Amino acid sequence: MNAQILSIGNELTLGQTVDTNAPWLAQRLADAGILCTRQVTVADDRADIAREIADAAQSADLLLVTGGLGPTPDDLTREALADAMNVELEFRPECFAQIEAYFQSRGRPMHPQNRRQAMCPRGATPLSNPHGTAPGVRARIGRTDIYLMPGVPREMKPMFEAHVSPNLPQREAAVIVQRTIRTFGMPEAEVGEKIADLMARGRNPTVGTSAADLIISIRINAHGANAAQAGAIAEADVRTIRERLGIAVFGEGEDTIQDAAARLLFERRATISTAESCTGGLIAKRLTDVSGSSAYFIQSFVTYANEAKHRLLEIPTALIEQHGAVSEPVADAMAANCRRISGTDYALAATGVAGPTGGTPQKPVGLVYVALAERAGVVVKQLRFGENLSRDEIRDRAAKAAINLLRLRLLGK
Amino acid sequence: MNAQILSIGNELTLGQTVDTNAPWLAQRLADAGILCTRQVTVADDRADIAREIADAAQSADLLLVTGGLGPTPDDLTREALADAMNVELEFRPECFAQIEAYFQSRGRPMHPQNRRQAMCPRGATPLSNPHGTAPGVRARIGRTDIYLMPGVPREMKPMFEAHVSPNLPQREAAVIVQRTIRTFGMPEAEVGEKIADLMARGRNPTVGTSAADLIISIRINAHGANAAQAGAIAEADVRTIRERLGIAVFGEGEDTIQDAAARLLFERRATISTAESCTGGLIAKRLTDVSGSSAYFIQSFVTYANEAKHRLLEIPTALIEQHGAVSEPVADAMAANCRRISGTDYALAATGVAGPTGGTPQKPVGLVYVALAERAGVVVKQLRFGENLSRDEIRDRAAKAAINLLRLRLLGK
Repeated sequence: MNAQILSIGNELTLGQTVDTNAPWLAQRLADAGILCTRQVTVADDRADIAREIADAAQSADLLLVTGGLGPTPDDLTREALADAMNVELEFRPECFAQIEAYFQSRGRPMHPQNRRQAMCPRGATPLSNPHGTAPGVRARIGRTDIYLMPGVPREMKPMFEAHVSPNLPQREAAVIVQRTIRTFGMPEAEVGEKIADLMARGRNPTVGTSAADLIISIRINAHGANAAQAGAIAEADVRTIRERLGIAVFGEGEDTIQDAAARLLFERRATISTAESCTGGLIAKRLTDVSGSSAYFIQSFVTYANEAKHRLLEIPTALIEQHGAVSEPVADAMAANCRRISGTDYALAATGVAGPTGGTPQKPVGLVYVALAERAGVVVKQLRFGENLSRDEIRDRAAKAAINLLRLRLLGK
Repeated sequence: MNAQILSIGNELTLGQTVDTNAPWLAQRLADAGILCTRQVTVADDRADIAREIADAAQSADLLLVTGGLGPTPDDLTREALADAMNVELEFRPECFAQIEAYFQSRGRPMHPQNRRQAMCPRGATPLSNPHGTAPGVRARIGRTDIYLMPGVPREMKPMFEAHVSPNLPQREAAVIVQRTIRTFGMPEAEVGEKIADLMARGRNPTVGTSAADLIISIRINAHGANAAQAGAIAEADVRTIRERLGIAVFGEGEDTIQDAAARLLFERRATISTAESCTGGLIAKRLTDVSGSSAYFIQSFVTYANEAKHRLLEIPTALIEQHGAVSEPVADAMAANCRRISGTDYALAATGVAGPTGGTPQKPVGLVYVALAERAGVVVKQLRFGENLSRDEIRDRAAKAAINLLRLRLLGK
């Protein structure tokens, strides 16, 4: 079974957009035990797309194509598939009805341009798209099963699940199980040293690490004769790695630090509020990323101006004058007062210099204080991020560090 | 001039790593006026890599290859290039000396495996790598100039700058200038219709649209004999498109809606505060994404609990009981009271059902009210996002709609 992926769009070949569809599809294929051997990206050019489809049909059993199904004249994948199949496009009233219904359900008029999206190569099967206007297409050239899907990930992913996944061949042999363990707060080299023996070449599972924005992920790929066997092989390493890395592990798969903190807040029926300066609401935003967060999240103050710190959080003006807004005493007072005013079990605060301007030799860009208040008192942590980090990166890391402080406290550390 | 990019690695074809090298290289080529027309990704398989190199050499003038130059047995790109060139690999003492020196300078012993990295196809030229152990390779098949570079971005990028960039053909002809116009609030089909004539095949510049999270981008790629000429060709279309799309256009390039709103707030020396329920601080976070935002952003309330709406924003409990927290009157009062309490020129508010739970037939998931208060009064806008959208997407779109409301008001609409 040889699967290939074809991604279409000038924004991709020009490098203006990073293609995340192809890796997502390759992972979903791997989940089904199907190896993707080749990925190709071409521009919005009818002849090029048709040639790539015809080429892939020479060597692939399965070809997944994304992009170029929109309503505008540069969307040419339908036409190119028809060319590769050597057939005409034909109008499909049932597709047109679905597109009309999509607009009606949203109370918006359908634009005449959208009619193009109801065209489908003769002999091919349209695939319904409840999440957008572009129907997909399933077709066959020789022995190759071909699926066209929209390039918009929000539309592509459900279409894959609804129309492609159920039609994939059942592969009892050679299942791959992937697990990912996520850690925060331990340097990558230390993670690597603690699990070096598991990363030896030729082991099953294979174990590798990758780092992104302070989160170190450990990826475990286990091969087995079936899902149960591969799963058990992966699980043994997951258990070993969790033991060795301890509380640095906050979750698995796509878990975030706020997911981990939210689970603990739910369990302990504890409540939280935040007082934010440099993070500008990002900590509150992340704590409310989680569905059901109203059970623990009460309120938040974004006190950007010093006057707002005084007015809303009752920070004495003298304290700010004496130590500066970016200081340990102000972070401490922000957290303590936020907790008292909000009547919550915990409060998080952050104040710092996110840059790129506003740094001084004493208080450079990247200096952030995060604080956690609870009944027993306040802990303040000083963070120093390199000045080479962007404003976005500094705010992201400060929010992660603050929420991790809460997570560790909820674990009793 | 036809350039192609070949990315090599199982982690790429399996979808475990997103390939950022290919987009980076495509952008750097475009900067040099060279169009990348095709990108291919294959696994660590000697025969597959050799076939892709030979195939690309049939159609490309320039082929950039990344990955598979490491010291381990699954690094096979050197061998595959030799196969495609139909020559032997030979040991290069000067490469070996550089690899030895690399280890010596770091005080680490060289592993015998690293000797493989000093192998180079006969007739090819090794490229030095001061940032790692893998030398690159420059070779030629027919008219195709081929460069092998390491897959690690930290090593690949300096090698491109040192060894590829200076050898790119001087293209006085065919400089490409890229511009991107970004719009919000106009459906993609309507955008497409208004600029359909500009999207005709064979025009210079080429014009295409892409949609992501309600933002429609219009990409303009102009070819010219030099940068000035290409720039003028692009500029003419930019002007036409801006005229036709009017206030739907909020910026260019990487601009965000908050960047556009911030520019207007700076210009008008206006101040803003926010009162957020379902967006949980996201509007505040975005308004403070912009460096220097302390000039206009004063403070923000995240009032997630109804009690917090009453306590911090003085929303009458009776109003919430009568209409519900997700209602036009409550959104109106949140914005008006936030503005009064904060003493700002404007205040934005948002209240809605972000889901995935908490929806009712009257107030389904995706129903959001955003409100903008100013001296003259309050405008409230009802938004209805499809129930198929995720919590993240609903919050993202609600925040965009709120900040766009501010942007349009600052433009006098």
